[in-house]
Amino acid sequence: MLKLYGFDVSNYHNMVKLALALKQIECDIVTTYPNQTPEYLAICPTGKVPALQTEQGVLIETNVIMEYLDENFPGAALYPEDAYQKARVKELVKMVELYIELPARRCHTEAFWGVPVHQETKKEVKRALYNGMQALSRAASFDPYLAGDQLTAADIFFLYSADLAATVANKLFEIDLLAEAPGAKELMEKLNQMPEVKLIAQQRKAATPAFNAYLAKVFKK
Amino acid sequence: MLKLYGFDVSNYHNMVKLALALKQIECDIVTTYPNQTPEYLAICPTGKVPALQTEQGVLIETNVIMEYLDENFPGAALYPEDAYQKARVKELVKMVELYIELPARRCHTEAFWGVPVHQETKKEVKRALYNGMQALSRAASFDPYLAGDQLTAADIFFLYSADLAATVANKLFEIDLLAEAPGAKELMEKLNQMPEVKLIAQQRKAATPAFNAYLAKVFKK
Repeated sequence: MLKLYGFDVSNYHNMVKLALALKQIECDIVTTYPNQTPEYLAICPTGKVPALQTEQGVLIETNVIMEYLDENFPGAALYPEDAYQKARVKELVKMVELYIELPARRCHTEAFWGVPVHQETKKEVKRALYNGMQALSRAASFDPYLAGDQLTAADIFFLYSADLAATVANKLFEIDLLAEAPGAKELMEKLNQMPEVKLIAQQRKAATPAFNAYLAKVFKK
Repeated sequence: MLKLYGFDVSNYHNMVKLALALKQIECDIVTTYPNQTPEYLAICPTGKVPALQTEQGVLIETNVIMEYLDENFPGAALYPEDAYQKARVKELVKMVELYIELPARRCHTEAFWGVPVHQETKKEVKRALYNGMQALSRAASFDPYLAGDQLTAADIFFLYSADLAATVANKLFEIDLLAEAPGAKELMEKLNQMPEVKLIAQQRKAATPAFNAYLAKVFKK
């Protein structure tokens, strides 16, 4: 049986959980916060989450895990069959991660836990998020999904990255980030209606107090 | 015929050039610097390089382009056949890009063109590069290649990312970055001996004066 290391508040972890749910793949969850213990580094070389234990060994990096699951397990397809269209979906996934998720993440401590980030960082992130959403708007159709009429891995990344990025943009820069991409808000609403997404949101809520207690310890250090 | 938008000094562009060379795929090069003109944004939604024009449309993001080329063209394989091993190579590519290339890139202006970056940025980048190379050392075999005895896409990323990152680490932080991963220096030397790599290095050198003139204009703005 597959084993997923991660925790229910992590947006990357929840991307994999949604992929597993949509494909109806069974998987044990081993609740794990990112850590640099020798034990976990022996499983996962970065100490980050998620990490997926397969029969052949561990895989890390969310997009790599999602492609592996899609190519090796039956169930709903998260990538198109056609080689070019598949590459386009990978491109959209990458754009969401590099140009929306990663810049926003640099401001998470301030936006979500009141731990200030440097002014210079905020200036960079504000510009990056604006440019990132503009670029995504040019690349994605939002008709209604990022790659067109089928839900793909790109929508899973969008769901769990763009919502956090929009919160960062709103709280720190008073920008309505999703408004930069026509169709983005409608897509976010549509995805949030899915029963699998609702369940993951409930599990996220239930796991939040334990994560906050863990964070309080981390920030105290 | 394929058409590659980019310029010979760009390390990402040179990754695609090396992949094309190793697979012996013919491709026209359209020398293009990153730009946000409406004309180029209509081709490439980020305005970055490289962008590959295929018969079906444009693809961006270097790893996406390399996977597409490998899956759709004959010639030397850049990814293993086995599904798990292939995922592992994608994971190594991602690690080099996220944890070595992207942090180092934030300091390129200071390391290569004397345009200072903020102290806070340098502090973040120093820690990120050190952690990134440590993580890569745990994940990669360097025996002699990143994924073992066959050259893969991960080595192409390593060649063109880790050299620049090592220069950044040396110039700005006086760190010997490659020394953090046993086998990394030997691999870098081995890759630099390849005739395809030597040719790309020559073309890079020849293209540098024009790129410097372009940069001088950008920084004057």
